[in-house]
Amino acid sequence: MEKIKPRTLSGFMELEPARQAQFEKIAQILRDTYALYGFYPLDTPVLEASEVLLAKGGGETEKQVYRFQKGDSDLAMRFDLTVPLAKYVALHYGSLTFPFRRFQIGKVYRGERAQRGRFREFYQADIDIIGDGALDIINEAEIPSIIYRTFSELGLTRFQIRINNRKVLNGFFEMLGLADRASDVMRTIDKIDKIGADTVREILLDEGISKENADEILRFISLEGGTEGILQALEDYRGRNAALDEGISELGTVARCMSDFGVPASHFRIDLTIARGLDYYTGTVYETTMLDHPEIGSICSGGRYDNLAGYYTDKKLPGVGISIGLTRLFFVLQDKNLLNESVPASPADVLILPMTDDLSAAISLATRLRAEGIRTQLHCEKKKFKAKIAYADKLAIPYVIFLGEDEIAGNTVALKELSTGEQTNTDFAVAAARIKAGLTERAKGKVIAGA
Amino acid sequence: MEKIKPRTLSGFMELEPARQAQFEKIAQILRDTYALYGFYPLDTPVLEASEVLLAKGGGETEKQVYRFQKGDSDLAMRFDLTVPLAKYVALHYGSLTFPFRRFQIGKVYRGERAQRGRFREFYQADIDIIGDGALDIINEAEIPSIIYRTFSELGLTRFQIRINNRKVLNGFFEMLGLADRASDVMRTIDKIDKIGADTVREILLDEGISKENADEILRFISLEGGTEGILQALEDYRGRNAALDEGISELGTVARCMSDFGVPASHFRIDLTIARGLDYYTGTVYETTMLDHPEIGSICSGGRYDNLAGYYTDKKLPGVGISIGLTRLFFVLQDKNLLNESVPASPADVLILPMTDDLSAAISLATRLRAEGIRTQLHCEKKKFKAKIAYADKLAIPYVIFLGEDEIAGNTVALKELSTGEQTNTDFAVAAARIKAGLTERAKGKVIAGA
Repeated sequence: MEKIKPRTLSGFMELEPARQAQFEKIAQILRDTYALYGFYPLDTPVLEASEVLLAKGGGETEKQVYRFQKGDSDLAMRFDLTVPLAKYVALHYGSLTFPFRRFQIGKVYRGERAQRGRFREFYQADIDIIGDGALDIINEAEIPSIIYRTFSELGLTRFQIRINNRKVLNGFFEMLGLADRASDVMRTIDKIDKIGADTVREILLDEGISKENADEILRFISLEGGTEGILQALEDYRGRNAALDEGISELGTVARCMSDFGVPASHFRIDLTIARGLDYYTGTVYETTMLDHPEIGSICSGGRYDNLAGYYTDKKLPGVGISIGLTRLFFVLQDKNLLNESVPASPADVLILPMTDDLSAAISLATRLRAEGIRTQLHCEKKKFKAKIAYADKLAIPYVIFLGEDEIAGNTVALKELSTGEQTNTDFAVAAARIKAGLTERAKGKVIAGA
Repeated sequence: MEKIKPRTLSGFMELEPARQAQFEKIAQILRDTYALYGFYPLDTPVLEASEVLLAKGGGETEKQVYRFQKGDSDLAMRFDLTVPLAKYVALHYGSLTFPFRRFQIGKVYRGERAQRGRFREFYQADIDIIGDGALDIINEAEIPSIIYRTFSELGLTRFQIRINNRKVLNGFFEMLGLADRASDVMRTIDKIDKIGADTVREILLDEGISKENADEILRFISLEGGTEGILQALEDYRGRNAALDEGISELGTVARCMSDFGVPASHFRIDLTIARGLDYYTGTVYETTMLDHPEIGSICSGGRYDNLAGYYTDKKLPGVGISIGLTRLFFVLQDKNLLNESVPASPADVLILPMTDDLSAAISLATRLRAEGIRTQLHCEKKKFKAKIAYADKLAIPYVIFLGEDEIAGNTVALKELSTGEQTNTDFAVAAARIKAGLTERAKGKVIAGA
């Protein structure tokens, strides 16, 4: 028979088994941590009617979306989890209770130009809190604290959540009479890390910003002195623009509440250059950077919005949300050797090698081990002993149990720990206890190490 | 602004939050149980190149598949998890270790005609064990035992795994000289439960089967006497066809090993009418029925195959696998009121209602509760007290903690259990212990009840 060459599309992540096990550990930590904060797990279809998914229309999104006809239906694959959330909340509004807190970890699709580290199918891991008509600002402090906790659980230590407030930016530009130039100016100052303050100033002048305004802008975005210092400095701007005043107050509230929520001062800072796109967000905005890898950009971003579902409903649904680009984060961690290879990624804790033809004792043993919560595999293939040990080695299964006639007769098991080579003949209870103790020890490491 | 009417495509399951929480519990039990048996979690793309996904081609599948062009690429959405597994194993053959055990829970897509209880996007939950060149028959007994364990963990009790062996069927029809008629005959006898033996006999005669053969077929598929009885009766057929002999031996081995694996006699039986499509499976085949709801058909099916990836590689990769149609199963459970509504589907265990303007004590309390593994929500919205209690009620959050000035000053919390209305003022440790004890009690129920 002629063969089809098996391949996976470029831009689609497909991991080897042990890598996938690491990925699953991360996903599980996300689910567990998000759940601790009282979020419902949510799932929505990957496919939606194009008119619903592309209600906003236009822009890059529409070009990248996977869209097609099936029968009479014009269908599209979701390109993020926010639009489906908006649809969900508008559609199920009557049966939801607000504030509605949900997390969703799911695949989204963007037909981008393929390049290293960019994916066409990738997981996003989102949390959002949606209010009905109003939503307290405390939520804008809780959201980044959840991210702090989540990354810490994963083992990430060298990261910083940077916050800003869109009202501060909008108010500031309004104050300067630059409300209609805000997008251009923001795009320019966004580059300050790369091109330096002087070049930014030159560009601003080229763009027709007055000398006074350019200096004012540069002074503003260069405010320093840590959280309290910047908040203090911002006080000097009070009384000149209502939106700016409100933004300064909100920024102060959020920053102080984040401390209450346990985010250490080392792990967040106010960054007045962050804007996160200009039309969707209306209050606090977040970006998260890995301190040793600023080149990869933000690994977790989001913010406050006043109107989640305006394309579908007149109900005012303000919310706040944040999203981890999980597939890209995993790619980066793998690429930079930041995954802790000593965290177990084996599919089993114990491999049983039956040494008798009658397998019933081995099967019973496997059942008893599984009842203890120990992940157990039986190896009953017709292979040489050496090949079976090699199998355990390759899969990094930490324990092997040999079960021969002597052990069955004596009601014992021969337990071997592969890392030390130590082998002992004990009864079941001792073996199970030893395995569990070893697993607890092995499970202590975090998934991410050295980042 | 003109609004787009929000809607979800027909044939796509989108659950309300509490239902989704139940679904997630089921998915988590599947993941945990599969993992106990030493399976790797696997994930593969939803989108594949059409030539890869449709290598087999033809038939219903090709008509139902969501297939489209994007740029130069001819793409298709996966319609099951088996073809992607075949591709995966063929593609990554060199880096895999065999037997390769993997589970995968993922969405698949079929553009079927929409009808109640049929889905175009649905989850499958698959386990497979793939050998390299050979695979021991013990695996054919372990697979259904995993399903027994999985359904039992879910709380399903009234189900039965029915097994057969394709070699028995093929050998039997070969023996009668009906090898080339096997498909037709199988399709007819498959209806015996609905139309009765007499009608089956009439149809067989109409189809040109001889009277002797028709009687022989009916006698064969009507063999009774439980597992041992049928195995005993099959012994009478030995010596007349090699495949039949082999099938009878395999069926005996699998049935007896299933007992060793702990599947009670009440939960499996040999059913010689099961064929499961005629070209893919080559040995043991499985179907699983809910005893009180035979009308919904098999909720979990699979079997042994000799050649997983023949379209992609010359390597002989025999395997055995089984699949739960998770979305359909969930639909049925919901539809027939078999989901245990007393199992917690709330997004949180505790709702904290701060009664002071300064929220720092409430935030610290939330952090401490979460550190104890208690899922905690803060309710800081500007709403009336009654509305906040109603919120906890609607979300079925079992505990509310009031934190006012007295409690903060006295270092206590006011803990209210909503189901009893009982309210106590205690210190943190007592409150946390009481909540945890209550949660343990609530968690005792299984997700499925009365089925």
